Amino acid sequence: MATSSLRKYAAVSFTDVDITGDFWRERLDTVLKRTIPSQYKKLVEYNMIEAMKVVQPPPPLTIPRNNHNFTTQIFWDSDIGKWIEAASYALRHGPDKDIEAKIDEITELLAKAQLPDGYLNCWYIGREPENRWTNMRDNHELYNAGHMLEGAIAYFQATGKRRLLDIMEKYVDHIATMFGPDPDQKKGYCGHQEIEIALMKLYHLTGDKRRLDLCAYFINQRGAQPHYFDQEARARGDDPKNYWHKTHEYSQSHMPVREQKNVVGHAVRAFYMLTAMADLAADLGDKDLKKACETLWKDAISKKMYVTAGFGPSAHNEGFTSDYDLPNDTAYAETCATVAMIFWAQRMLNLDLDSQYADVLERGLFNGGLAGLSRDGTTYFYENRLESNGKDTRWAWHNCPCCTMNVSRLVASIGGYFYSVGKSTLAVHLYGGATGHVTVVGVKVKITETSDYPWDGKIKIKIDPEKDAKFALKLRIPAWGQKKAKAALNGKSIAVSKGLEKGYLTINRAWAKGDVVTLDIPMEARRIYANPAVRADVGKVALARGPLVYCIEQVDQKAPVSNISITAKTKLKAKRKGKLLGGTTVLEADASSLSRKQWEGSLYLDLPPVEVPAKLTAIPYYQWANRGANAMRVWINEK
Amino acid sequence: MATSSLRKYAAVSFTDVDITGDFWRERLDTVLKRTIPSQYKKLVEYNMIEAMKVVQPPPPLTIPRNNHNFTTQIFWDSDIGKWIEAASYALRHGPDKDIEAKIDEITELLAKAQLPDGYLNCWYIGREPENRWTNMRDNHELYNAGHMLEGAIAYFQATGKRRLLDIMEKYVDHIATMFGPDPDQKKGYCGHQEIEIALMKLYHLTGDKRRLDLCAYFINQRGAQPHYFDQEARARGDDPKNYWHKTHEYSQSHMPVREQKNVVGHAVRAFYMLTAMADLAADLGDKDLKKACETLWKDAISKKMYVTAGFGPSAHNEGFTSDYDLPNDTAYAETCATVAMIFWAQRMLNLDLDSQYADVLERGLFNGGLAGLSRDGTTYFYENRLESNGKDTRWAWHNCPCCTMNVSRLVASIGGYFYSVGKSTLAVHLYGGATGHVTVVGVKVKITETSDYPWDGKIKIKIDPEKDAKFALKLRIPAWGQKKAKAALNGKSIAVSKGLEKGYLTINRAWAKGDVVTLDIPMEARRIYANPAVRADVGKVALARGPLVYCIEQVDQKAPVSNISITAKTKLKAKRKGKLLGGTTVLEADASSLSRKQWEGSLYLDLPPVEVPAKLTAIPYYQWANRGANAMRVWINEK
Repeated sequence: MATSSLRKYAAVSFTDVDITGDFWRERLDTVLKRTIPSQYKKLVEYNMIEAMKVVQPPPPLTIPRNNHNFTTQIFWDSDIGKWIEAASYALRHGPDKDIEAKIDEITELLAKAQLPDGYLNCWYIGREPENRWTNMRDNHELYNAGHMLEGAIAYFQATGKRRLLDIMEKYVDHIATMFGPDPDQKKGYCGHQEIEIALMKLYHLTGDKRRLDLCAYFINQRGAQPHYFDQEARARGDDPKNYWHKTHEYSQSHMPVREQKNVVGHAVRAFYMLTAMADLAADLGDKDLKKACETLWKDAISKKMYVTAGFGPSAHNEGFTSDYDLPNDTAYAETCATVAMIFWAQRMLNLDLDSQYADVLERGLFNGGLAGLSRDGTTYFYENRLESNGKDTRWAWHNCPCCTMNVSRLVASIGGYFYSVGKSTLAVHLYGGATGHVTVVGVKVKITETSDYPWDGKIKIKIDPEKDAKFALKLRIPAWGQKKAKAALNGKSIAVSKGLEKGYLTINRAWAKGDVVTLDIPMEARRIYANPAVRADVGKVALARGPLVYCIEQVDQKAPVSNISITAKTKLKAKRKGKLLGGTTVLEADASSLSRKQWEGSLYLDLPPVEVPAKLTAIPYYQWANRGANAMRVWINEK
Repeated sequence: MATSSLRKYAAVSFTDVDITGDFWRERLDTVLKRTIPSQYKKLVEYNMIEAMKVVQPPPPLTIPRNNHNFTTQIFWDSDIGKWIEAASYALRHGPDKDIEAKIDEITELLAKAQLPDGYLNCWYIGREPENRWTNMRDNHELYNAGHMLEGAIAYFQATGKRRLLDIMEKYVDHIATMFGPDPDQKKGYCGHQEIEIALMKLYHLTGDKRRLDLCAYFINQRGAQPHYFDQEARARGDDPKNYWHKTHEYSQSHMPVREQKNVVGHAVRAFYMLTAMADLAADLGDKDLKKACETLWKDAISKKMYVTAGFGPSAHNEGFTSDYDLPNDTAYAETCATVAMIFWAQRMLNLDLDSQYADVLERGLFNGGLAGLSRDGTTYFYENRLESNGKDTRWAWHNCPCCTMNVSRLVASIGGYFYSVGKSTLAVHLYGGATGHVTVVGVKVKITETSDYPWDGKIKIKIDPEKDAKFALKLRIPAWGQKKAKAALNGKSIAVSKGLEKGYLTINRAWAKGDVVTLDIPMEARRIYANPAVRADVGKVALARGPLVYCIEQVDQKAPVSNISITAKTKLKAKRKGKLLGGTTVLEADASSLSRKQWEGSLYLDLPPVEVPAKLTAIPYYQWANRGANAMRVWINEK
């Protein structure tokens, strides 16, 4: 991998981390044993595997075209690619010959479908070969390629098998002939960013600089005028004014990326693009690109983020609206958007080891991200409401199943988010039970974390270098725990506040086998308030403990969740419940509710409802909607 | 008019009431001089008048078909009919040869279009004559007929001209041959109730019992099984399962009307139906029908009414959802639904002189109804939000302009809502400046109201019978004013609370020329709270004064409306502002807001926002959105 002055850190690969702790092990086992197999069944059931056979005449559509004459079937390749990616990460944690055989079968279908020039998109090859590369705006051709490429890379990393990777590299070679600055090349890019991430991964895997160049080309072309999507529409005989999304903000191609100051449009597209931009900035040493990432990060985090790290309030554009517009009951907050934010945050950490990035990464992971997957691992949320009137239920599949495999690939690759290595630094971002096998300053180091995180903030970190090695160990102290966190090295306490550098406790020393650092980050139930500009949260409070944002679900309350309120002084009590929801920590409080006695038959009266005592029991947000349809609230009334 | 034991009262016609007071005179003048002419211009501009010429080949559609292959152009006849109706009411208040000429021109177009058998629907005659009466569920054929018939009746009442009425009676004769119990007749009814109201009006005008029978047939057929709309769909070769609204609740034909216990579906359809049902119950002496009306009234009023008397929270079905589901920022609350409720409430008053009906009538009139029309009389709201983030603006026309003419016909016929006459009773429902020319116990009585209502609760009512006459004068004392209302007869005070019968102060005596009753209903600013089951209004309070519900509009505040809060004890001060919005009474209060100083750059913090003093100025809800796009709230945070 090329390094530049801007790439300060590299994440330790999922291949080098064992997950041992209860919390992630349970989620991981569920994904391995239930999610990945059940997703494959759905791919079969929905004819998605069959569709890769590219038979003639093409079979009738499984997903009917919508009002815009569009079918989500056009991006089935991406779903298959994402499933391969998730399954490959899973294989790292437990070999499964059956899953491997399925991926190999898919590989052969792709090999058979691939055209001699390398082109490989099952929809176009089977249904409209004459139209390939004619509608970059809508038809996700490069998006499909990107996801399949990510799948191929993950499969290679997990198994060492490179047939699928070879196929996809051949396709990338073809793409590189089609798009670029030469007069006979197309000046386009994909309406749904994604291939940019995959190209960066391929570059990091192979060191082939052509991949970096192609990624840079796609990023740099975005927003160039005359607008490619408009030219392309006219070439198709279509009036650009007919564009159903009306604005190229939808795909963040309304202006060159370096000039963008506000995160706009489709949230997943935005964050996939920003993931690649941050990666590209690091490898190119492009300060302007880095600056654009930082500007857009600040905008996203300080004006557009749900407390669960959900993003994109609107179903209309699956994305952003105006600053501070964060409605709870209609929150779109697509699971994919949180997952994409996690990708982006991880790339930002390579540029600058600042815990603001890892804190958001963790917020997404434990809240908006995990919420997308049911406890049993077979049902999902696409939209992640922060308030439900009891009508939101998880679904087993979706006409656009993007979120299903995004959450499974996130969980299955969780090991890849724990550690980063810099020039002479080993950084720890996440806590839980895990063992990393890393190389720092040329020395192999085993790092063993033991903790019951996120339920408990006591963390033991054992450092075992192959031989004594001098490097800085950087341990993220989450913002919520910085005031009271304690640390000790081999039993001797360390002043946390003094050693904090951008949120990381830095211990610089010569490390020897058996060195132990302990952290104690007290997990007290705490309150979160929103900026008063967030209309939806005025007069409300959210509860949290450690990295977990809490919610009140109707099934745990006697009073209606909409009537429950607490005061700013209400005592919150954390209680470990080993059996509830497979193990959780609830928050309990004496709250108040509103009596309905006086209201029989009356809709409006001139006296306020009478308050009555009530109990409140809150559970972690990610665990909601696992006990049937249920009213729920993250933001609780505060009196 | 036939009378039965159930019709206790009859409303005094708009033709017999002069409007003299400032409040309604201003609205009336605006409608006469600006709304009616500007609406005619729109009818021309949108080719709606031209479409009545029924030329061959038919011109291209003005309103493109939607995803369901439906165009609102199919009910243009109804819009024309409603404009004629509104214009006719207006003519009562100020002759206008130009408007009369336009109605006469339209009459001639209709005369020319009418088929020899009496059929008269410009869409079908011009575009698909072979399909008439084949899609009662979707295509509004009888709805169109009903509105045009109402227009014809109003024009006859206002001018004595009966050519249009003759045309429409001929059409009704045709309809009566098509629908009915005979084996060769269709067993159907309209998907959008409306003709039922018109048939009752025609019956009351002409005494022709066939009109009553046809109305009863349509009402009684509703919900009969096998379901007519399903049979009809199959006859068209369409699968009933393809029905885009999925359920016949949408058109209240899911079960026989007498069995319905909950108001469901499309709000305007429901209330138009209930208007006719109440009328029919009175004339038929049908106690079951009356009971059904009462049951559904209670359901609507105690579980489904916005505080503004808006109805139907959902855009999806333009109607009802679940009990107490009254979101403010997404409130649909179609203007037409409030107008339709006013019609229904008026019919309920004929069955039972209970001020609960007149109170809701008044609530609708001064709030959800009037809010639909701009101050200048040329722009409209279709949806009436109770909370706006500043993006809701009035429109000058709509692809479905039903609300425009519903609000103008309501205002232009306002005189028709003031008085009712019973066997030996004269009832007064509304206050303001008005003079009614009524006949009670066979004696002509002039009733002259003088007041500055709704700004002031001091009301003077002069009773001038042609000769001394013994009857009961019943004066509605609104529920909000019953505690403190005072009354006097010829200067001598009357105990209000003792004389109240179902909310009407009853004065039974021999009336002589020059008798004067005065009422003093103190108008104090007051608070309204919602049933705690209304999730959207928990922790909030609405302000009102007299019949007017208030709101805070951003243009009048320094603090953001979403951050303003008051306490249960905050003093509210009413202040007359002669120039603001053409004259209004505002409510002012010392409130608090939330400081944003500490929040620069932060979206979430662990301490609540700091409260800071703020001022609140509330205006009547019906006057909002007359000063540009503006954030607004009816329900204000209460600390």
